[in-house]
Amino acid sequence: MRESGSEPMERKIKNLKYVFEPKSIAVIGATKTPSKVGNVLLKNFIEGKFDGKIYPVNPKYDEIMGLKCYSDVLKIKGKVESAVIATPAKTVPSILEQCGKKGIKGVIVLSGGFAESGNTELEEKLKSTAKKYNIALIGPNCLGVINPYSRLDSIFFPVFKLQRPKPGSISFVTQSGAVGSCIVDLAAYYGVGISKFISYGNASVLDESDIIDYLSNDDSTESIIVYIEGTKDGKKFMETLEKVNKIKPIVVLKAGRSEKSSKAAFSHTGNIAGNYLAYSSAFKQTKVIEAKDVEELFDYVKIFNQPLPRGKKIGIITDGGGLGVLTTDAIEETGLDIADLGEETEKKLKKILPAYANVGNPLDIIADADPELYKKSIDIFMDDPGVDLIIVIVLFQAPALDERLLDVLVEASDDRRKPIAVVAVGGDYTHMNRKILDTYGVPTFGSPRDAIKAIKKFTTYSLTSRCRKCIFR
Amino acid sequence: MRESGSEPMERKIKNLKYVFEPKSIAVIGATKTPSKVGNVLLKNFIEGKFDGKIYPVNPKYDEIMGLKCYSDVLKIKGKVESAVIATPAKTVPSILEQCGKKGIKGVIVLSGGFAESGNTELEEKLKSTAKKYNIALIGPNCLGVINPYSRLDSIFFPVFKLQRPKPGSISFVTQSGAVGSCIVDLAAYYGVGISKFISYGNASVLDESDIIDYLSNDDSTESIIVYIEGTKDGKKFMETLEKVNKIKPIVVLKAGRSEKSSKAAFSHTGNIAGNYLAYSSAFKQTKVIEAKDVEELFDYVKIFNQPLPRGKKIGIITDGGGLGVLTTDAIEETGLDIADLGEETEKKLKKILPAYANVGNPLDIIADADPELYKKSIDIFMDDPGVDLIIVIVLFQAPALDERLLDVLVEASDDRRKPIAVVAVGGDYTHMNRKILDTYGVPTFGSPRDAIKAIKKFTTYSLTSRCRKCIFR
Repeated sequence: MRESGSEPMERKIKNLKYVFEPKSIAVIGATKTPSKVGNVLLKNFIEGKFDGKIYPVNPKYDEIMGLKCYSDVLKIKGKVESAVIATPAKTVPSILEQCGKKGIKGVIVLSGGFAESGNTELEEKLKSTAKKYNIALIGPNCLGVINPYSRLDSIFFPVFKLQRPKPGSISFVTQSGAVGSCIVDLAAYYGVGISKFISYGNASVLDESDIIDYLSNDDSTESIIVYIEGTKDGKKFMETLEKVNKIKPIVVLKAGRSEKSSKAAFSHTGNIAGNYLAYSSAFKQTKVIEAKDVEELFDYVKIFNQPLPRGKKIGIITDGGGLGVLTTDAIEETGLDIADLGEETEKKLKKILPAYANVGNPLDIIADADPELYKKSIDIFMDDPGVDLIIVIVLFQAPALDERLLDVLVEASDDRRKPIAVVAVGGDYTHMNRKILDTYGVPTFGSPRDAIKAIKKFTTYSLTSRCRKCIFR
Repeated sequence: MRESGSEPMERKIKNLKYVFEPKSIAVIGATKTPSKVGNVLLKNFIEGKFDGKIYPVNPKYDEIMGLKCYSDVLKIKGKVESAVIATPAKTVPSILEQCGKKGIKGVIVLSGGFAESGNTELEEKLKSTAKKYNIALIGPNCLGVINPYSRLDSIFFPVFKLQRPKPGSISFVTQSGAVGSCIVDLAAYYGVGISKFISYGNASVLDESDIIDYLSNDDSTESIIVYIEGTKDGKKFMETLEKVNKIKPIVVLKAGRSEKSSKAAFSHTGNIAGNYLAYSSAFKQTKVIEAKDVEELFDYVKIFNQPLPRGKKIGIITDGGGLGVLTTDAIEETGLDIADLGEETEKKLKKILPAYANVGNPLDIIADADPELYKKSIDIFMDDPGVDLIIVIVLFQAPALDERLLDVLVEASDDRRKPIAVVAVGGDYTHMNRKILDTYGVPTFGSPRDAIKAIKKFTTYSLTSRCRKCIFR
């Protein structure tokens, strides 16, 4: 089989719709043995209320979890659009052949034991079979796919250990399954909605560029996050980033940045992580945003949900003086600016603050500030043209604060005249409140420095990018 | 009143024992009005099961929360060792005079509205009265004190909003009440045990140096964390740091590091934050550890709980390849070293790992690794003289892991031949497991970069300090 031009490849990319939105799926390798991949997988499809027909496939059983089980896909009478395969590596090529014969157009191969373990021949077989039948294949050696809109979920991790995110507008593309599982879990934890999640593993048929290409035409995807260690086709990757970043903003976390970590990446995926300097300069050139760590990725995702700031002059409102000082330190150490409050603003603030409070920036509204005082102060900052972004520091521990403050903060975030960010340092109660705010799109940070790091990237993006629309919403 | 030499000051410092371990305490300003400071305060004393007699004082009531209430301290028949005052600023000097007459030797003044609001005269009155009666006075304008050993707790924040830490060996001294409340909350959240917590506010009688001096002789305090914006007596502060750091390690978070943040600090405490460069070089000279943010403070506290590493060669064990790569990136970017595994080690590892796993550092023990494989891998790293510190990366989300892994990690941490650190990225389930580990003294981090930042400080301290004993335990 030889491809004529790139037509079959384009067809395969189009066939990804069967991977993401199949009306029917075969779960090959489904099993009754608890905690095995094929068991958790089927369970998640059933309990996750997958929006389509589920066909368990395993010659050992007639029935699993109340569903009829088939010895192979060819035995299934109805049409099958997609399959997820979780059987030992050596069995996968012949199973894929059967999928092809059955007319299945989208396949996820979860199984490991291919090129990454030295079995390149086995992987070549996979490749040629997928080509033969124009199958859009994700994997092998991956976690597969989540599409919360069609309740499709091939992640074989128990839901109680790894939470699943709600539907949203961000798509995640990851080479590493481990990092991918952390990303899914954190997205759910931070209340970040996702459009698609794709762990693509060895990328033997469709690679990161093909997937990003598909997502650029995916209606529910508004921005794309990529975790990558190395690629087989650097030129294609950079061209794809350049093309797609103009339509939908992309954040990349490139791992394997040093010689030793690049070696570690190689032993893990079989891909050469490549020269980081080349990647890094390409990122700058294509203007994609670069993150250095998974936590940082989410700090960016959260702040980019806000309207872009017009400048880098920061206004700070706090009910704890010390936290205002620490935030000022972080701002000055990062090269952002502390906004000078206008005369008008100072007059207005004097009217609403108790006599013993000092008007300034940071604005210390004192530990007994109630939600109403927060609201008034935020409104005044919103009206001051000298303030580009508002940091609201909240001591959720303070006795004078209650859930009304959450309303105030959500309202301020929904105002969308200026971006806001909330800094709240503390334990269980504070975490609970932060989670509620994150879920409503109010970006919260556990320390001044985390907030400032993200805000720095945000303002830099805003001041250097031509796209003025809000980008992660 | 003039002091003859420093004798009365020493007496006052000694009298701090009445602040920390009083057999009886007057709660002045106790009230029935819910959520008022004097209400939460008394409630916390009663519900916190304070280890001594509690005397509510307020002329408005005969009884509060089932306790007899006194119109003033002089009406109390029994001996009173300590008082906590939460009444309006202008009433405090005369109340303090009564405390002096009653023979009360330790007083905490929570009330604000003194020098920090321009009422310097009022604060001077406080000062002279405390001198007259040799009262060890903490405050005013502060959160006061926690001593979990005697269940003394003057923090007027509700326990459901602000958790309280268990008894332990670390003492916290803070100028800012807001930052102090975050510290207390985070200590509880991370399972860090404390010896004493002191929010000293305006430091009108006893300042940070006096308190640190007292703690250097306090048996249950093994190390001291200080948050400071500015001091009235820089020379005394530096001399105290130098003296005490030789006996008990000190970590300092100095806020107000820039001109603007120093101004913010001034408007907040009335103290000049001073030239940061002077502080910074003094910290280097006295070899105290410097942190830049509250979160960072806890990252250090956690890792310093481990035995000091002999060098900076890091061994990494992971069940997720990508996280190993990210950790390697962070290590190389920080100037730490990836350990070269010995031949012996590689041989031993080959025996225990599945055939398809690659032996190396980072050691990828693959996503289906069980607790037993973690244990064996950690043991082998412990025996390799080329490894100075072990980072264990755990995907708690992985189906093959269960609570036995917690035992393995606690055991490895208790082994104390080498320091270990756990990196676990994820949502609720991961946070739950991290919290358990933190509570048992196993330092956990939510991202590779957070871990590496703390480890860098840890190895630097170990390689430059002469003290070889474990320091935060």
